Amino acid sequence: MSLSEISKPIQHHLDAFTPYFREQMRSKVPLLDLVIRYILRQRGKKVRPTLVFLAAEISGGVNPRTFTGAAMVELLHTATLVHDDVVDEANTRRGFPSVNAIWKNKASVLVGDFLLSKGLLIAVERDEFSFLKSTSIAVKRMSEGELLQMQKSRQLNIDEATYFKIISDKTASLLSTCCEIGARSASNNEDICSSMARFGELMGLAFQIRDDLLDYVSRTNLIGKPYGNDLKERKITLPLIHALNNADKKTSKEIVSRIKRGKLENKDIVSIMEFVRNHNGIEYAQLKSEELIAEALSILDQFADSPYKHALKTFAHFVIERKS
Amino acid sequence: MSLSEISKPIQHHLDAFTPYFREQMRSKVPLLDLVIRYILRQRGKKVRPTLVFLAAEISGGVNPRTFTGAAMVELLHTATLVHDDVVDEANTRRGFPSVNAIWKNKASVLVGDFLLSKGLLIAVERDEFSFLKSTSIAVKRMSEGELLQMQKSRQLNIDEATYFKIISDKTASLLSTCCEIGARSASNNEDICSSMARFGELMGLAFQIRDDLLDYVSRTNLIGKPYGNDLKERKITLPLIHALNNADKKTSKEIVSRIKRGKLENKDIVSIMEFVRNHNGIEYAQLKSEELIAEALSILDQFADSPYKHALKTFAHFVIERKS
Repeated sequence: MSLSEISKPIQHHLDAFTPYFREQMRSKVPLLDLVIRYILRQRGKKVRPTLVFLAAEISGGVNPRTFTGAAMVELLHTATLVHDDVVDEANTRRGFPSVNAIWKNKASVLVGDFLLSKGLLIAVERDEFSFLKSTSIAVKRMSEGELLQMQKSRQLNIDEATYFKIISDKTASLLSTCCEIGARSASNNEDICSSMARFGELMGLAFQIRDDLLDYVSRTNLIGKPYGNDLKERKITLPLIHALNNADKKTSKEIVSRIKRGKLENKDIVSIMEFVRNHNGIEYAQLKSEELIAEALSILDQFADSPYKHALKTFAHFVIERKS
Repeated sequence: MSLSEISKPIQHHLDAFTPYFREQMRSKVPLLDLVIRYILRQRGKKVRPTLVFLAAEISGGVNPRTFTGAAMVELLHTATLVHDDVVDEANTRRGFPSVNAIWKNKASVLVGDFLLSKGLLIAVERDEFSFLKSTSIAVKRMSEGELLQMQKSRQLNIDEATYFKIISDKTASLLSTCCEIGARSASNNEDICSSMARFGELMGLAFQIRDDLLDYVSRTNLIGKPYGNDLKERKITLPLIHALNNADKKTSKEIVSRIKRGKLENKDIVSIMEFVRNHNGIEYAQLKSEELIAEALSILDQFADSPYKHALKTFAHFVIERKS
């Protein structure tokens, strides 16, 4: 099972989308155009446009409005990636960024702002008010989710409800918007649109749980994140939260103190991993993601069978079965 | 002449605006709320809401929609200030930010994104499509203007037309939006709205020219920028551009080479300042800003006399006469 299999029924739309998107990204400012061309070369798996197109097909059919929606979410997603770079670059250099890194920070913030506003302007120019509403809410939720996560990684007092709030805001919000906008581009039926929004939300939650879980199980992680990375960044995710709840208070307290002290070495990581496994943290997280995907699949029951429905089902299975 | 004199006829609106704005800024995320309360404590002169209210009064009268518009521009302005901090902090620490500074960078990017999306959501929630259009364009232009300025401060090949493009995008765009939105909140007359947009644009251009000029004349600068700061940051502004055009080619080339080498010492700054004065750079910039303000004042002729018109006129004079 792979993403290319999932995108197969809408591959022709994705092919048409690429030059359309490139055109939307253009700027007359040479420095900006340079950075944008650099970003476009690095472009990834087009997960979000794929969701927009599939949601549109299942809801009535792709049309020019679907392309507007797909461009919006991809622009907003790219903007957040560029803004993430500001943070990550500074982090990996541990307080010693070069002047070049600072230059990149300045440019990253501004390029991100440019992409955000372009994403919104596409909708403004085409009078797509409902798209604007959905995406503005997503941008707000994404920033709130990241900030709540930052706060909790300082305090280390995160519980399961807060964890779900964080992943809903930082990850599920944009996937929900993808599915909602796709549906809205093809249908006026409010039930269909809100069903698809919920489908995207569930997919996003399960996706993030699986992502967090993989940090505890995968040693050769293809998405570029080393094993145990979340722990090093003091991100407490579902497997550990469950293990902490499941263990005796004394052991849990010791684990949290160890993380709080910082500078985790490999042996610390290994022993925390063992603690999580011994207290069913990984099984629990996997179970939760499977429950969410089961609910997502049940939403698809109301739609007639089609290659698009099949692709969305495959996508849902992929989310909880992927190894990287 | 002072800003408080200018805001006098709409002071009651500004007073009502403060708690309204505070309410719009609120978030349920504690870390975000903390940063926002910090920002609110530092709040400045409310130049932008003042312009929105005055533009509304002159165009038909302040109403609840005017408050929406004022909150939008103030949120967007605050967002860009927060994003600016990312850059400035890194710059002043010359490549050695503390971990705390990095933390602030991450938070600044996210808080800025949050404020941007909140600014847009205020309009989305109230179906203010025309406000959204105007502000999205402003956000795009501000980022493009800053990026073009960054590029030119590397290449040092800026001419007068490019300078005007930069200050129009980075500064005048938002002041234009303030006046346009104020007018739109009070009037459906497209002539009035576009006149006020133009008035704001002219005010913004003149404001930035005066700002750039003050960097060449004011030693005790109250706006917190030390004398000659633009030169140190390789920002070539109108006084120098004119002097370079006005001097013989050899001298101009030497000046540009000196700036290009970097690490300007006080004696370099003093000698460049002298060069600019000797080649009428300061008079020329002042003249240009006065021409722009003359055009802005002529736009006001179409409106009947009122305390609001008087305040806008005073504002226009203030822009080119202020000492800091």
